[in-house]
Amino acid sequence: MQKMTTDSLDLPLTVTVDVRADPPDLQDNTADLDRLRQALRRALMAMGTERSVVIPFRFMARVGQAFRDAGFRGHAVVNVLDDRFECVDFLAQSPGVLPAMALDLGTTHLEATLIDLQSGSNLARANRPNGQIKYGADILARIHYATGQKDGLAILQQAVVDSINQLAEDLVGQAGLEVEQIRALAVSGNTTMVHLLLALSPYHICREPYTPFVGWPDLFCAVEIGLMLNAGAPVWVLPSIGSYFGGDLISGILASGLDEQENTAMLIDVGTNAEVVLGNREWLIACAGAAGPALEGGVARMGMRAGPGAIEHVRLDQDTWRLSVQTIGNKPAVGICGSGLIELVAELFLAGIVDIRGKLRRDTGSDSEARQQFIRTHLVEEEDGLSFIVVPAEQAGHGSPVILAQVDLDAMMRSKAAMYAILTTLVGQVGVDFADLDTIYVAGAFGKHIDPRAAITLGMLPDLPLSVYKPIGNSSLAGAELVLRSEKARRRALSIGQKITYIELNVNQEFMIRFSGSRFIPHTDPGLFPSVPIIKIDEGA
Amino acid sequence: MQKMTTDSLDLPLTVTVDVRADPPDLQDNTADLDRLRQALRRALMAMGTERSVVIPFRFMARVGQAFRDAGFRGHAVVNVLDDRFECVDFLAQSPGVLPAMALDLGTTHLEATLIDLQSGSNLARANRPNGQIKYGADILARIHYATGQKDGLAILQQAVVDSINQLAEDLVGQAGLEVEQIRALAVSGNTTMVHLLLALSPYHICREPYTPFVGWPDLFCAVEIGLMLNAGAPVWVLPSIGSYFGGDLISGILASGLDEQENTAMLIDVGTNAEVVLGNREWLIACAGAAGPALEGGVARMGMRAGPGAIEHVRLDQDTWRLSVQTIGNKPAVGICGSGLIELVAELFLAGIVDIRGKLRRDTGSDSEARQQFIRTHLVEEEDGLSFIVVPAEQAGHGSPVILAQVDLDAMMRSKAAMYAILTTLVGQVGVDFADLDTIYVAGAFGKHIDPRAAITLGMLPDLPLSVYKPIGNSSLAGAELVLRSEKARRRALSIGQKITYIELNVNQEFMIRFSGSRFIPHTDPGLFPSVPIIKIDEGA
Repeated sequence: MQKMTTDSLDLPLTVTVDVRADPPDLQDNTADLDRLRQALRRALMAMGTERSVVIPFRFMARVGQAFRDAGFRGHAVVNVLDDRFECVDFLAQSPGVLPAMALDLGTTHLEATLIDLQSGSNLARANRPNGQIKYGADILARIHYATGQKDGLAILQQAVVDSINQLAEDLVGQAGLEVEQIRALAVSGNTTMVHLLLALSPYHICREPYTPFVGWPDLFCAVEIGLMLNAGAPVWVLPSIGSYFGGDLISGILASGLDEQENTAMLIDVGTNAEVVLGNREWLIACAGAAGPALEGGVARMGMRAGPGAIEHVRLDQDTWRLSVQTIGNKPAVGICGSGLIELVAELFLAGIVDIRGKLRRDTGSDSEARQQFIRTHLVEEEDGLSFIVVPAEQAGHGSPVILAQVDLDAMMRSKAAMYAILTTLVGQVGVDFADLDTIYVAGAFGKHIDPRAAITLGMLPDLPLSVYKPIGNSSLAGAELVLRSEKARRRALSIGQKITYIELNVNQEFMIRFSGSRFIPHTDPGLFPSVPIIKIDEGA
Repeated sequence: MQKMTTDSLDLPLTVTVDVRADPPDLQDNTADLDRLRQALRRALMAMGTERSVVIPFRFMARVGQAFRDAGFRGHAVVNVLDDRFECVDFLAQSPGVLPAMALDLGTTHLEATLIDLQSGSNLARANRPNGQIKYGADILARIHYATGQKDGLAILQQAVVDSINQLAEDLVGQAGLEVEQIRALAVSGNTTMVHLLLALSPYHICREPYTPFVGWPDLFCAVEIGLMLNAGAPVWVLPSIGSYFGGDLISGILASGLDEQENTAMLIDVGTNAEVVLGNREWLIACAGAAGPALEGGVARMGMRAGPGAIEHVRLDQDTWRLSVQTIGNKPAVGICGSGLIELVAELFLAGIVDIRGKLRRDTGSDSEARQQFIRTHLVEEEDGLSFIVVPAEQAGHGSPVILAQVDLDAMMRSKAAMYAILTTLVGQVGVDFADLDTIYVAGAFGKHIDPRAAITLGMLPDLPLSVYKPIGNSSLAGAELVLRSEKARRRALSIGQKITYIELNVNQEFMIRFSGSRFIPHTDPGLFPSVPIIKIDEGA
């Protein structure tokens, strides 16, 4: 809602500006702070910008004293706002580094980097659990705690502020610095996490018509929410588009460059929700849906987040009928993460052990002995139906078998159906064909670990050449780094927020139809997936 | 140092803006605060301004909740900054009045008005002593206390903040309001008083090259210095040009309109210093000098500020040789204020009892019996020379005679000489003749009470038609009211600060020469004062 300046600078969120003023004398005894502001304005105009220069009240005494002590020349520390510059400190010597913290504010995990705004280099990287977890595992539970418990909002704010302060300590510890040296913070998170950090009520986020309290908070100081960074450090929060479309996805768009490309491309970010954006430099359209739970871990009985001991890759050799699994950190298996689950089900489908409806099958027709042996070993009848033993108890890290139950498989089928329905609804909305897409960016751990081949086999992702799929890592964090480094990126973030069209899937009929059609492997219309072999299962089993 | 906007609005410092937004629904579930900001921006654009609209962090929760509670329509309370609008509150109902406080922050006295920014009307007026007095009577003593005592600066700040809070209570008491309803404050004071209010070091103000810490502080909130006004109330401080040229004089220029007039005019403000400005809408030149002490009270033995019992007018009838005095409030005389002193000395000069060198004379030549009787009654020989009994003990309010001693007269002579020297130096600087001036504005109590005829007789003010002299009352307070009411006035104040030329008299040779020439009544060159009769005193006395 700010009026944008039109100068062409591309400044970091915080900069140091070399200021040289003459000391006062009887011919010019302009007041110290006015002298500084004039010199600073001159320096900034020489750089090509005419924005206002202000010295906020609470920094006046410190800045003025430091300016005089430094002999009226040195380095002004300046926060770069859209409509003004704020001088918050003055240093006699160049600080060498100007550290800033980029934060991916996840519901369960925080990940952060420390970057030097002067050189642009990365100084440190760290992660920690979100300290709010003990008050609620997921977003809904947090909202209920914040709005239903006495002081719930303040408690949740304090919990995550503590986590961020610890993370800041981790970062400066690695870099051999002090937290007071951190001069800026950018935060990229989902809408609810941002509300809880700012102690703004998330009450209406989860209630129709799903209205956040704030989408784009104006810049504030880290100390205002209790962060132990430098007193002048500003906090830039990536804007949210809606209750289910947060700043983390704006970050993804920034990091992928979707909003700057001539060719239409797509961005997929699977967390608790699947969030998808389609567009180019002319237009952007987005939607989000609950596609993720079975993939993110926590829903499937053996599901878990990508972490040590999580099965991330699965291969089934149909000659030897040997199942090989690869775990993160090569630790004994303790569970299965999203990418592992997708590969497992794809392999079982290709082996005829999961049918097109996503059901485990124990067929005993014209099978080879090796296959029959494999089925006897791995499929067990349990109370609630068949289950598949991925890793037997004696090989597992916790002494219990790692098992895929039919209920887990059903959940995964819903997730994969939702994902494909989201993607087709989105392209259908603007009349684009999947084949028109050069690139599909896949964000996060999902993008990093997933085998697109397996996802295509399941009919979760469209049947495109594998080179179309590009993993882009933690793009939430990457976006936070970008806005710290570049004003152009900050303007892009706000402009994305203003131009994006968001489709509510809850109220979309077409989505529901597409969802039903997607609940087969790969699809009710296998013609959509020409690269996926048609698996004949002996129906006599 | 702010970049000025170019829109043509002339808004008060704080305004309410009628905001009407649609409630959120599934088609538009924009976040509450973004919705408010958009609606506010639309309303402001309809008014003709495109400045940024921000909601500062500490008001977000309150503003957003109030906006929702009011059904997304009502009245946003908005502070008007040069480069942006800040929304600090939201009211469901129109507040009726929007009270703001204008403050003349004097060294000894505070005077304030409460005005309604909606109607422009005055709601109340009050004054109080400056609570800092007990730490030092004058500016120098305060500076020494602030910089020499432990916590001196904080103690002085608290003292004046307490006084202002009490004054605010006085004002709202008169108006039947609460202090929390005061939505803005403008402060007009000398440079040192502003520093002490803001707790910024005045150390260099009184030390060559006389450099203030700040001339033009950026806008801040009243609560930041401990004032008990509304949490969102901004403080606008009239800028200072230098250590001895404060915001109170900028106020005087604003109130007189000197900076907007085609014809060159002059403004004289006599307080502890005499501050004089000459100029028109093209240029402004100013200087200040220590002309005031004898006139302001506190230096002359019987001198006092204008207050109950102070002699403000004196007439000596040369037919009856009766001396009549008029006191403020018609109370028994307890002292003599500046205007009374000037009239007394003028009358004594015209009666031949004070000579052209400013000395009391007891001449006993060819006088009438009545005159001889008058001299015998009123002139007494004291240890340090002659003194003049203005009011005998039995008629005085405190049982002691009100006396004009030669030392007091000497001080007054220095003051009047300094004043005339300042005025002639200033006009000489730009080659203007006194006769070119249509108007000489005379500010403050001095302007209100002084008889220009008497001041001309003494050679203190130039010999111009009496209609040229225009008293303008407390122009420091009037200027503070103007900047509260009008953005145009705020821009004028800053533009005055930028275009005025300030002459340091301390280093001005010409001033010293003119000062010497002015130490006669009316002047060494009586031709400069054609309207003043030449008084022959029998030198044989």
